Amino acid sequence: MQNIKALIFDVFGTVVDWRRGIAGEAEAFLGQEKGLSLDWEEFADAWRAKYQPAMEPIRRGERPFTKLDVLHRENLVEVLADYGITSLTDAEIDRFNTAWHRLPPWPDSVPGLLRLKTKFIIGTQSNGNIALMVNMAKNGGLPWDVILGSEVVQAYKPQPEAYQRACEALMLPPEQVLMTAAHNNDLAAAKAQGMSTAFVARPLEFGTKNRKADIEPGPHVDISAWSFTELAEKLGC
Amino acid sequence: MQNIKALIFDVFGTVVDWRRGIAGEAEAFLGQEKGLSLDWEEFADAWRAKYQPAMEPIRRGERPFTKLDVLHRENLVEVLADYGITSLTDAEIDRFNTAWHRLPPWPDSVPGLLRLKTKFIIGTQSNGNIALMVNMAKNGGLPWDVILGSEVVQAYKPQPEAYQRACEALMLPPEQVLMTAAHNNDLAAAKAQGMSTAFVARPLEFGTKNRKADIEPGPHVDISAWSFTELAEKLGC
Repeated sequence: MQNIKALIFDVFGTVVDWRRGIAGEAEAFLGQEKGLSLDWEEFADAWRAKYQPAMEPIRRGERPFTKLDVLHRENLVEVLADYGITSLTDAEIDRFNTAWHRLPPWPDSVPGLLRLKTKFIIGTQSNGNIALMVNMAKNGGLPWDVILGSEVVQAYKPQPEAYQRACEALMLPPEQVLMTAAHNNDLAAAKAQGMSTAFVARPLEFGTKNRKADIEPGPHVDISAWSFTELAEKLGC
Repeated sequence: MQNIKALIFDVFGTVVDWRRGIAGEAEAFLGQEKGLSLDWEEFADAWRAKYQPAMEPIRRGERPFTKLDVLHRENLVEVLADYGITSLTDAEIDRFNTAWHRLPPWPDSVPGLLRLKTKFIIGTQSNGNIALMVNMAKNGGLPWDVILGSEVVQAYKPQPEAYQRACEALMLPPEQVLMTAAHNNDLAAAKAQGMSTAFVARPLEFGTKNRKADIEPGPHVDISAWSFTELAEKLGC
């Protein structure tokens, strides 16, 4: 770990609580503003469920690279149709789609990042596009040094190019870059490209009823912690 | 000005003092370490003089996009040859080439950016590559929200695509993005793409003997100031 120069982070689930954020935005807009009554967490899960499938044609090269904000909006239109919600204007859908720009950080994210930033370059390595990441950082106080990820590297994790090009952009050998995520599949893909890997458990990513979150680090993990502040401690910050 | 959401900055000359920085690094390495005696500011000027010509084949589409760190190194090899300095190893040249990663901010840059950051997205819109900008920010305390510029947009200013794609990355209409520079040609090119423009004079960019720095804002400038702190004041930060 002593040669680490930069930490790059998965964001959705690892840095921010997408489920609580989307459920809260859905309740504020569809509930309080539009008078609908739904299971808001189920709505968040339904929108999120379309996330990975939407990137698949791009990963397979069947669709040109498309920003996640665009995919999120396409997915939202589908989810609204699934729920039989047909009364929203295009402008309202546009605005609701920016819910992802306002996701709340986990409580330890900002304090941990501020400590890590004193010693390392810290950046995003998310499938989210640049505007989404920048706006989320401004809204949540995430002190990134650099926004990397899908739009910069023109690839979606876990494509190998996503990890390779992020390290190239930093002009660092992959072993000096610590990929940090709550998801073992992301870390396994990073390790396959020679990166160092940190696992931070986010047991509540999928809520209290669903226990599918990774709790234990997988075999490709170099260092693990229960919070960003503990990770900072372990890395001497 | 009241719809401005983001400020993006020219960096070399506008945010940092490249001439003093390069002269100081040259003196520390070639002078104190290698025992040479040169006019260090003249050396800095000679290296910088190769900057614009090196980007020209890329702007004309005759060479694939190449990071500025690579161009800087090619230029350095030429300058060293021009000075008859032939004794450096490849590793020494590599290290000296990172002098651009350590350029000192003008005295008002960090205080002004910290104020501007409270109200706006602030980012780089430089011909420098990502690693160069990130390392310079870490060394100088530049609090960027986002690193944009040549490597992200795959174009070199003043190519129109450089400005267009930066605004697209932020998902903002160009008039809501304030291009900030000490160089009127940069601002004219930004204005031609519909951006808002801010001029900040850097009268000493080329030293005290050479008065070629732009002092007055050109006709395409929307707002001007003598420092980043004055710009922050004028923008209500």
